[in-house]
Amino acid sequence: MSISLTVLYHQPADKAAFDKHYDDVHIPLAAKLPGLQSYTVVRPGPEPDGSAPRYHMVATLVFPSAEAMQESMGGPEGQAANADLGNFAQAGATLLIGETHQVL
Amino acid sequence: MSISLTVLYHQPADKAAFDKHYDDVHIPLAAKLPGLQSYTVVRPGPEPDGSAPRYHMVATLVFPSAEAMQESMGGPEGQAANADLGNFAQAGATLLIGETHQVL
Repeated sequence: MSISLTVLYHQPADKAAFDKHYDDVHIPLAAKLPGLQSYTVVRPGPEPDGSAPRYHMVATLVFPSAEAMQESMGGPEGQAANADLGNFAQAGATLLIGETHQVL
Repeated sequence: MSISLTVLYHQPADKAAFDKHYDDVHIPLAAKLPGLQSYTVVRPGPEPDGSAPRYHMVATLVFPSAEAMQESMGGPEGQAANADLGNFAQAGATLLIGETHQVL
């Protein structure tokens, strides 16, 4: 059973700076995580009333098992990706980790 | 460019009743949505300190385009799935809709 890490990035003070750093620096770092099976990024559109969405971005990283995720995150690549959060995600992020159930 | 609908279900009063209804009734309804490309469900584990995760469940539904999603949600299957939310998701849900960028 594969394991998903869902990262809900809170709205940053400077969205353009966040996006540039995420695309140019963080994606290349996170994509190096050993064992990573899939990695998806969604930037939600505004709410129907035009207001900002609840989160600026959703990143979903899937690993083959909880052990593989833990090992990957604890290794040098995981530490580098984690250390980079301080460079763009100062507004914080909500993390959700659990088994992935693929319905379809 | 495919479109993701991420549904973050708020913590229900009765988690077991939520899970049973979701698995037995809502999944079969949602899986019938025309054009659905993938449908993933994650039930996050507790926080490192043992407290409940920020959301009870994450459901991710992917459609080939925004138009396909809109058409699917507005059709009879979408209306049936939407109407069913009142039967188990009384605590509410946060919806995020945006283009999917597949990094890996």
